[in-house]
Amino acid sequence: MKVLIVFAHPEPTSFGGSLLDRGAGALRAAGHQLEVSDLYAMGFNPVASADDFTQRRFPDALQYDREQKHASAHHAFSDDIQAEIDKLRACDMLILQFPLWWFSMPAIMKGWIDRVFVNGLVYGSGRRFDAGGMKGRRAMVSITTACYPGMVEHDGLLAHLDINLWHLQHGTLAYAGFGVLAPFAAWSIHYTTPEKRAEYLDDYAARLTGIEGESPMPMHPLEDFGKDWRLKPGIAPRTIGHRRALEQAR
Amino acid sequence: MKVLIVFAHPEPTSFGGSLLDRGAGALRAAGHQLEVSDLYAMGFNPVASADDFTQRRFPDALQYDREQKHASAHHAFSDDIQAEIDKLRACDMLILQFPLWWFSMPAIMKGWIDRVFVNGLVYGSGRRFDAGGMKGRRAMVSITTACYPGMVEHDGLLAHLDINLWHLQHGTLAYAGFGVLAPFAAWSIHYTTPEKRAEYLDDYAARLTGIEGESPMPMHPLEDFGKDWRLKPGIAPRTIGHRRALEQAR
Repeated sequence: MKVLIVFAHPEPTSFGGSLLDRGAGALRAAGHQLEVSDLYAMGFNPVASADDFTQRRFPDALQYDREQKHASAHHAFSDDIQAEIDKLRACDMLILQFPLWWFSMPAIMKGWIDRVFVNGLVYGSGRRFDAGGMKGRRAMVSITTACYPGMVEHDGLLAHLDINLWHLQHGTLAYAGFGVLAPFAAWSIHYTTPEKRAEYLDDYAARLTGIEGESPMPMHPLEDFGKDWRLKPGIAPRTIGHRRALEQAR
Repeated sequence: MKVLIVFAHPEPTSFGGSLLDRGAGALRAAGHQLEVSDLYAMGFNPVASADDFTQRRFPDALQYDREQKHASAHHAFSDDIQAEIDKLRACDMLILQFPLWWFSMPAIMKGWIDRVFVNGLVYGSGRRFDAGGMKGRRAMVSITTACYPGMVEHDGLLAHLDINLWHLQHGTLAYAGFGVLAPFAAWSIHYTTPEKRAEYLDDYAARLTGIEGESPMPMHPLEDFGKDWRLKPGIAPRTIGHRRALEQAR
């Protein structure tokens, strides 16, 4: 497989940096081709703006998603965006690795999504979920966090991890067409022993070594929804985000 | 009340810009004091880095949250961060207004959270939820979106809006101690009529005029959770994120 790792951490000597190196080594050892976008090292600009386009369809007022669509059709993205789009379209698997900040990505990675997941290629004109631009590829979220696992269980202080990551795993990655694998998490990193850290690195390497055989989490195909965008009668909710509907109906 | 509006939109002449102006007018007319952080206009830097601190506790390797704690105790934040912290601490109500991009904030606003919601003032050392640094204040999310309302119902294509916003409304704003009001949304903005846009502006002005009397969405106090960070036996899940647990247990 061609694997793209997008990495966002302000400190290369962090445990996150070790996890990146160990994961990359495991993927290469398993015969995969690897591309890494280390956003902090690249000085990646996360702020979407008019500068992102070399020509405009509507020059008077910036409608960002419409200009993305125009730029997709006319090859009119700034060089930094085009380089990331090329990596994204070439990959069979995308790994987003980051420290969990406020139950989401650091801003530098959110900006990578904002600017690189473009209308006209990744989404738009009916491209989403099983018709998404990244259909047939897989994606995984890999986090380091100060949380303890119990905090992000169903009845935990923060509710389930996959509810916290819903906007990213479902609203972004699945929306774009990726099959989304279960996330990898290294917990309460500030308070772990060196032994536990070594164990996380071993676990991550083992997981990535066998990642080609993993199946995505359950997701609804578009045909499960009616013209009102709601699940059709008789379709049982299959995702952690939709199951709430089941509870509501009881 | 002192109201802080944090606004993130790349185009000042957008409908989002009109919503900002109309909302600000309504709040001023109701006698509130207003502060606006227009992040694009300010050229706000969203990328958390070592430059955010004027002195360091651990100069060898950046541990961002630990340096925030140190900087909170020693007044050692960069000027741009300190200015936003001052506005945040002075406010009785925080409004985050943005176009919904990938079911979250634009990167420039995520970076405002990453850099301004600092350890040692907003969270950390037990500060969270009803013991959070922003305890006693209220917050509201105000979005413009290309979505149709049916898409973000419980059984909608994307699952419920509050599940998509969970990381922000619960994991960020409630975590910081804010009482979180129901979000305001202006739907499918690209495809609305001028009349519908005018109606959204009127609705928003009316909502903000009466906002002081609104009550926050249900939230669990810390005492509802045991030492294992899970809801204590007999405590019924009260939030949309936790209710999933109820369904699971049946």
